[in-house]
Amino acid sequence: MANPVLALTGGVGGAKMALGLSRILPSDQLTIVVNTGDDETFHGLHVSPDLDTVMYTLAGLANPETGWGLEGETFRTLQALARYNAPDTWFRLGDADLATHIRRSDLLRQGWTLSRVTTELCQRLGVRHSIVPMSNDAVRTVVLTAERELAFQDYFVRQRCAPRINDVRFNGAESATVAPAFATALDTAQAILFCPSNPLVSIGPILAVPGVRSAIASFQGQRIAISPIIGGQAVKGPAAKMMADLGEEVSCVGVARRLRGLSDVMVIDEVDREQTSAIEALGMRTFVTNTVMRTDEDKVALAKEVLALAEISRGQA
Amino acid sequence: MANPVLALTGGVGGAKMALGLSRILPSDQLTIVVNTGDDETFHGLHVSPDLDTVMYTLAGLANPETGWGLEGETFRTLQALARYNAPDTWFRLGDADLATHIRRSDLLRQGWTLSRVTTELCQRLGVRHSIVPMSNDAVRTVVLTAERELAFQDYFVRQRCAPRINDVRFNGAESATVAPAFATALDTAQAILFCPSNPLVSIGPILAVPGVRSAIASFQGQRIAISPIIGGQAVKGPAAKMMADLGEEVSCVGVARRLRGLSDVMVIDEVDREQTSAIEALGMRTFVTNTVMRTDEDKVALAKEVLALAEISRGQA
Repeated sequence: MANPVLALTGGVGGAKMALGLSRILPSDQLTIVVNTGDDETFHGLHVSPDLDTVMYTLAGLANPETGWGLEGETFRTLQALARYNAPDTWFRLGDADLATHIRRSDLLRQGWTLSRVTTELCQRLGVRHSIVPMSNDAVRTVVLTAERELAFQDYFVRQRCAPRINDVRFNGAESATVAPAFATALDTAQAILFCPSNPLVSIGPILAVPGVRSAIASFQGQRIAISPIIGGQAVKGPAAKMMADLGEEVSCVGVARRLRGLSDVMVIDEVDREQTSAIEALGMRTFVTNTVMRTDEDKVALAKEVLALAEISRGQA
Repeated sequence: MANPVLALTGGVGGAKMALGLSRILPSDQLTIVVNTGDDETFHGLHVSPDLDTVMYTLAGLANPETGWGLEGETFRTLQALARYNAPDTWFRLGDADLATHIRRSDLLRQGWTLSRVTTELCQRLGVRHSIVPMSNDAVRTVVLTAERELAFQDYFVRQRCAPRINDVRFNGAESATVAPAFATALDTAQAILFCPSNPLVSIGPILAVPGVRSAIASFQGQRIAISPIIGGQAVKGPAAKMMADLGEEVSCVGVARRLRGLSDVMVIDEVDREQTSAIEALGMRTFVTNTVMRTDEDKVALAKEVLALAEISRGQA
């Protein structure tokens, strides 16, 4: 029996939701599909920031201060790479984190797919739920400024989103194939959840993989999105800045516009209660609750409410 | 003007000699050619143990306890690799050391030769003397037991040389090419020094690269070897055990037999004074001195004596 819940996610914000879901649903009831548009090669190693954030979060190993990276991390290898004048040492790869990239890269070079590598790494860290990259093919998010194209990590980490952008593209998406476990979930799930992740560069790349948008548009089960924008601000990350640059409304309404026809329900925060009618005008229902997830209890509570909306309860499948 | 002194070396023992030489000779008077037969790929990364030992030693970064690896090293990445059940975690790669292998592998994949990578890494660590791999091509030392072939690091590190061996081979040597700077040194040096390195698996692979043995055999300058076997024991490493397995005499005489026709002088330790006639019977002269290098002063003192024997003095070239 296929897993009834398909959750789409990016990094930190979505990983919180994924953690909540994983605390409620057994491993055979949840498929977590993760953005790989911000994967990058550093020092010849394949780095998958969002896959790792979700994996570390579910393994209980994530750095609670940042939401990404590993708790208690050290940076000895990076310091030594800097001594060699290696490029890109602005991307803070920790010593224990590097093991993930080294192992992933080694297995990829041996011909493993990214999906299979992800399953292997998760299993070794004791993660029992399915974490699936959106595609086994390379899709690379780039942002366009007036002058040039920037790789996403360059824009996001090195330049701290300072450049004003006028477009976002997903290089390689047109020829990418949906990962098999993602295709199965699109085919058989009872509910699709959009975790509170950046609509442009976390959900955007997932939707850019050919076949995904149409499959979700024609999906027969429940489709629920949790807004990552609360009170006009992104809880974490560059979503608000990027939406503003692109001339989009920086609010849960702006998020809803991007998901029009793809989600039936928008879950929004109490502080955005007055936005319900604007969202409903887009043909979506709204559900108002506390969507700020500070503690693990917050994550589980929100996940429970979302699953109740989707009429999914533990053990239903 | 080509560098007048060519030193051939393996890891720890030879690196001590190389350090002594580097303290006396300016960088334009010494070429240090290093064994790469025990290079190995771990976790998809190219590891060059002897090149790194010599580089770290000359950079003043080597672990003084072991002679190899970096001082103050930590092993966080390796622990995390073990958590992923990565193979070969018995090979103790430290966090800072890993940066060397990551950087080297990245540059090799970009098409750099091992020689060029070595020059780059040395420059970044402030090493001014030329450290040159014997070849830019892969030569892999393997040992043969009664049952099977073992990669050298498997035999040496994982199995601590416990298996009894009956042969040593250098896979790939027959099609390897001498590294350009090594070829230049063979052509133009005034003296060739065999550092006190394992005759089987440090000097052996260097001599196995096509053209090297004949070039040394017909070399017109001074050829001097320092015995790595003192009083019937290897100062460091498996030379004595390996020589015994192969039925060779475990002594400076045994070393001299391997270098017959390739070296004019054997430098032996005081404790081996009674072996001089046996060595001279092989057609080599002997020079007896203290060859145990405990301190940097020992290394410089021995290097001075060897250079005097070779009639090389600083600034001569």
